[in-house]
Amino acid sequence: MKQEELKKLLDTMSLQEKIDQMLQLTGDFYQDADSVLTGPAVQLGVTGEDVRMAGSILGTCRAEKLIKIQKRYMENHPHHIPLLFMMDIIHGMKTIFPIPLGQGASFEPELSKRCAAAAAKEAAVSGLHVTFAPMVDLVRDARWGRVMESTGEDTWLNSLFARAMVEGFQGDDLKEPYKVAACVKHFAAYGAPQAGREYHTVELSENTLREYYLPAYQAGIDAKAAMVMTSFNTVNGIPASTNRWLMRDILREEMGFDGVLISDFSAILETIAHGCSEDSREAAVKALEAGVDIDMMTNVNVYAANLRKLTEEGVVQEAWIDQCVMRILELKNKLGLFENPYKDADTEKEKEIFLCPEHRALAREAAVKSFVLLENDGVLPLDMGRRTAFIGPYTDSKQIKSSWSFTGDDKDCVSIKEAAGKVFDGSHTVYLKGAPVLGSDSKESEARLTGFTGDECGIMTREEEEKMRKEAVEAAKEADLVIMPLGEHYLQSGEAASRAQITVPEVQMELFRAVHRVNKNIVVVLFCGRPLDIREISQKARAVLVVWRPGTEGGSAVVDVLTGKENPSGRLPMSFPYCVGQVPVHYNEFSTGRPDRKGIQERFRSKYLDIPNEPLYPFGYGLGYTRFSLSQVKLDKAEMREGDTIHAGVMLKNIGERKGTETVQFYIRDMAASVVRPVKELKGFEKVTLEPGEEREIIFAVEEPMLRFHTEQNGFASEAGEFLVFAGTDSRTENRAGFRLVK
Amino acid sequence: MKQEELKKLLDTMSLQEKIDQMLQLTGDFYQDADSVLTGPAVQLGVTGEDVRMAGSILGTCRAEKLIKIQKRYMENHPHHIPLLFMMDIIHGMKTIFPIPLGQGASFEPELSKRCAAAAAKEAAVSGLHVTFAPMVDLVRDARWGRVMESTGEDTWLNSLFARAMVEGFQGDDLKEPYKVAACVKHFAAYGAPQAGREYHTVELSENTLREYYLPAYQAGIDAKAAMVMTSFNTVNGIPASTNRWLMRDILREEMGFDGVLISDFSAILETIAHGCSEDSREAAVKALEAGVDIDMMTNVNVYAANLRKLTEEGVVQEAWIDQCVMRILELKNKLGLFENPYKDADTEKEKEIFLCPEHRALAREAAVKSFVLLENDGVLPLDMGRRTAFIGPYTDSKQIKSSWSFTGDDKDCVSIKEAAGKVFDGSHTVYLKGAPVLGSDSKESEARLTGFTGDECGIMTREEEEKMRKEAVEAAKEADLVIMPLGEHYLQSGEAASRAQITVPEVQMELFRAVHRVNKNIVVVLFCGRPLDIREISQKARAVLVVWRPGTEGGSAVVDVLTGKENPSGRLPMSFPYCVGQVPVHYNEFSTGRPDRKGIQERFRSKYLDIPNEPLYPFGYGLGYTRFSLSQVKLDKAEMREGDTIHAGVMLKNIGERKGTETVQFYIRDMAASVVRPVKELKGFEKVTLEPGEEREIIFAVEEPMLRFHTEQNGFASEAGEFLVFAGTDSRTENRAGFRLVK
Repeated sequence: MKQEELKKLLDTMSLQEKIDQMLQLTGDFYQDADSVLTGPAVQLGVTGEDVRMAGSILGTCRAEKLIKIQKRYMENHPHHIPLLFMMDIIHGMKTIFPIPLGQGASFEPELSKRCAAAAAKEAAVSGLHVTFAPMVDLVRDARWGRVMESTGEDTWLNSLFARAMVEGFQGDDLKEPYKVAACVKHFAAYGAPQAGREYHTVELSENTLREYYLPAYQAGIDAKAAMVMTSFNTVNGIPASTNRWLMRDILREEMGFDGVLISDFSAILETIAHGCSEDSREAAVKALEAGVDIDMMTNVNVYAANLRKLTEEGVVQEAWIDQCVMRILELKNKLGLFENPYKDADTEKEKEIFLCPEHRALAREAAVKSFVLLENDGVLPLDMGRRTAFIGPYTDSKQIKSSWSFTGDDKDCVSIKEAAGKVFDGSHTVYLKGAPVLGSDSKESEARLTGFTGDECGIMTREEEEKMRKEAVEAAKEADLVIMPLGEHYLQSGEAASRAQITVPEVQMELFRAVHRVNKNIVVVLFCGRPLDIREISQKARAVLVVWRPGTEGGSAVVDVLTGKENPSGRLPMSFPYCVGQVPVHYNEFSTGRPDRKGIQERFRSKYLDIPNEPLYPFGYGLGYTRFSLSQVKLDKAEMREGDTIHAGVMLKNIGERKGTETVQFYIRDMAASVVRPVKELKGFEKVTLEPGEEREIIFAVEEPMLRFHTEQNGFASEAGEFLVFAGTDSRTENRAGFRLVK
Repeated sequence: MKQEELKKLLDTMSLQEKIDQMLQLTGDFYQDADSVLTGPAVQLGVTGEDVRMAGSILGTCRAEKLIKIQKRYMENHPHHIPLLFMMDIIHGMKTIFPIPLGQGASFEPELSKRCAAAAAKEAAVSGLHVTFAPMVDLVRDARWGRVMESTGEDTWLNSLFARAMVEGFQGDDLKEPYKVAACVKHFAAYGAPQAGREYHTVELSENTLREYYLPAYQAGIDAKAAMVMTSFNTVNGIPASTNRWLMRDILREEMGFDGVLISDFSAILETIAHGCSEDSREAAVKALEAGVDIDMMTNVNVYAANLRKLTEEGVVQEAWIDQCVMRILELKNKLGLFENPYKDADTEKEKEIFLCPEHRALAREAAVKSFVLLENDGVLPLDMGRRTAFIGPYTDSKQIKSSWSFTGDDKDCVSIKEAAGKVFDGSHTVYLKGAPVLGSDSKESEARLTGFTGDECGIMTREEEEKMRKEAVEAAKEADLVIMPLGEHYLQSGEAASRAQITVPEVQMELFRAVHRVNKNIVVVLFCGRPLDIREISQKARAVLVVWRPGTEGGSAVVDVLTGKENPSGRLPMSFPYCVGQVPVHYNEFSTGRPDRKGIQERFRSKYLDIPNEPLYPFGYGLGYTRFSLSQVKLDKAEMREGDTIHAGVMLKNIGERKGTETVQFYIRDMAASVVRPVKELKGFEKVTLEPGEEREIIFAVEEPMLRFHTEQNGFASEAGEFLVFAGTDSRTENRAGFRLVK
């Protein structure tokens, strides 16, 4: 449909029709299976008319059902406008890829683009038009449960992944087959809740908000994301969903977003709980003033319940509503729904595409690339001839997706035992659970988790746990080597899963200690949705492999890496803190006026008395199965003048015995500026695979736009002065050179 | 001197003379004993001329010496302008009062005013003119070491103490005997370092900065504080000391401060380390532009080293320098120094006033009133007839002041044993240390602490510790009751004393557990400079009395309270968190869009999976030796219109067997506003002492100005709508009533 036709369509719509376009309901209202609710329990408050006319549906999928709903809906609709179907397809639809934090560890945005494209394909054939992804929130506090959904603590890396994922979901043209609209979320700064507590207050200076938090959203918008979602938190004291300054001045005007803005689940209504709207009527006015186009499924449909009356009373202008509706119609049109309201929905294609070999292979590749080897004294890759015991609750678990992959099925996942069974000699290998994921000691946590899921973890008695542990210890005694797949419960990360104690559940630590007492040859395979405090494991285990929540092909990928079929190459996208008392912690911090100086004991320095400032494992850190040398970084110029490119060169050599992959990272520091700048900022990286003995020169180009930052007076600009560049294999690198920007 | 004369004096001063007024040196330069350095090691960089001409001296005291320095200085000075002597007199000069956090617990600003006046008297006779106090920074993170120097987490309570302390130090007229100028610090928001790490980055939205952080400074300024000190941190990305917006627009223009602005120790120079000044020259320009009048003692005296050349080159205007110098001269004049350059310095009066009985009595009263009884099953007050063992490192320790009371002497402190010896029957009482303050297990902490002080804590071997513990356990077995004075080392709080683990040192916890195994009748007396995680102590001890760092008369006060001679009446001015994973935590948080609802198990709520949202002991909490009942709070009006006063009445009754003191607290909540408002805000309190059976009606008056807050558009204003008032005995109270503000 052409723009003029859309405009004409809008002109012929009644006020009620328009308002209903701004209403979103769940599939529950359209009676069928396969629907999922994410958010507070739903208490209905809409009319049958609203249901017949609502402009979009949330949380329902599968071709057969959506085709039926669409057909019925359009027949009923006075203008036969098609519905939009939206859902959270975060890291896979049926084929589940690693969680985004794991994908961040790949340092390979192109990989995430492929994963997003595959997810889009599965989503599209199941009838969906929009996914509520990517989540691009910057995260610095491991207590927060949704760090699993972010690609980490670096602004620029997040921006690359934001762009890649949007491109993967959307392709070049949303009308094309297998493409779905992306929704960049959560605008803005949802990733910085106070004390890591879900939905808690966000405190950021405007400078930090603009410089470090907004760019990843901007990258998604620049990649033409069709939608943006508001966040639950306040920004400068006002809830995002009714924050006119944030949405109109920043998002629309400054950042140039002209797509559809949707509130997060119930977020407009929840401005009442925030204490920023007296009632749903005031909430509706404020959200409309802020330019929120769609009121996502809510206990009380704020727009549906109020906008008609408000418009009739002249409190809000119909022109504002027209703007919102026009954006919604434009999105429907971009998706080609006026011509083909069912888009790619196809029950036959579902069968063909869901979990197809290509997608499984991609899931396996992505999982392998997401794994981060934190410790290895040479025990990995495994010597296959030895007696091996797999001991731990994730040994044969299929619960290895995440709480954000409810469209997938655990039964489709490959467990470690299943994958290992194919390559390990059965006569020399045993598999034991050894402990539940959560123990009988963690009643509170368990009750809260199981209260929601009906999941049966942790309902063992202490005696049963002890019996299980004893059996495992006996097996460990007999083994040459123990592989311990340990970690968090899948509901210990994700939405509403903040943890004040970021440790491996105590029942598993007891198992670990008991095994360690009888066998020191331990390799820990760590399942987690966040960085954990793993000091004890780190000291005692011979190797530690972080596998996050690896998805459908998790078990295969773990075995690929343990056996050396694949080389671990992931690098931490988020620091593993020394302990929870250190968070928030991130590599790209500011220097402060009294930076702690390594090796010098001084009292009046920015530090703790009892722990180091540095995290246990920093951003960018990760090992492989070979070793690399990196030469001193050299610059081809000592001064940069307008239009100059400076090249930073470094020679990487594989000095080990095996082929391997290194991610050479390039950081810049602005030594003095009108506002404080980070001690290091990632500005480039190159992932290089080399044969033993092979070497390669890597060149990073530095240009003036890379040196820009958000100034107090002049927007984004660079300032003359000294800069340091660093090239290394993690963010701690001190391999550096300097240049001067001359203006 | 009259203002015109000052102006004339300024006109006759050379540029160099002016610049030297802006320079501050330590007493080290004037060769004598009794000087103290606080800050990074001093590497000199000033000329002899600078030393002869510097406008003020830091960190040196005692009448004899300062009289000598002043005399010599004025003789040398071309215009015979007197020197200013400044020093950190934080909670006492020779007579040490409880730390400010303890004073906050008194909920009695008038008491702090008396303490400040006594400290001023001792300071004044020792020759000082200015104290770098009060510190009025809002604090919410117990990891930070300087929470001990604040009066806590409540904006309004801090404001009351800020005013009281300024009035106590300054009196009505600085020329009067025994008055010293106050310096409100640290402007601004030094109390919110990221992750509680000293000097670390501060992230606050402008709304939060203005609404919750600035008011206490404003209260100090409104009370006519002569000086303000800059903070070490950045505000919105720019170090406070060179932050023109913060200092010119906010502090001078908006907040109306026209006194002397001094940088914190080395803070202008440290803008280089911050990465906001390229060199000391740029730092000098920026600090002058921000209007910083005095460059506090620094490695490189930024002003002295640069301002002359900068002025001669026309980079800075002499008019700016004139403004600074005029403010300094005005302060000297306010203190009457042009007429009496020695002010109150008097060696005879030092003898008479230092630690005089009145001051000791006040220190004892203040200590008693600072103590907070957290737990008591009836074991307190003590039954004196029983066999009592005092076991713990603070049993006979005189190191009970703080790291911020270096002008006082430990030897002048009364230990618990000394005080107890006078009232406990020697034949039934034993005193044992049981453990060092810091154990051999805490090497890092210990090394860092002792590296500075030469203090010998914790150099015992593990074997010696065990021997000591065994003796203590034997004694505990023989006792009816064990009093355990435990706690932090005095250098574990204060400046540069951030702790990531806010626990009682492990060697003491081992002692506690060992004693508990043989004797359950334990009363813990807790010495601390911050809220600690005391879950274990709280569960196992029969009573817990927090005594902070109580000062000179600490031991006497502890015995007064344990024996029931005095009634404990302190209330927490800062929440005791459940664990470190919960910080920052404070009672006056925002509601969020999804507040956790007590007793209802819901997944998508703002909470943790593993711990409660509530601190272990909240703001305002504390027990006494009697019990009180409080009636339902009642309002005399349901609506407030312009100019109205609403009265909230509540009846307090002593329903216990002993005389006692209760602090009835009055909170308000604004249910909906244009920006989010706290779930509760302290707006009134009354400290009431009642005999058994006695009752009293307490009335809180509510007027419109109490309902104002920092709006996005209209500065401080109130908004029509619903309000709740709460009256109770701590910040958890649900005793409430509502009214409506009509506009």
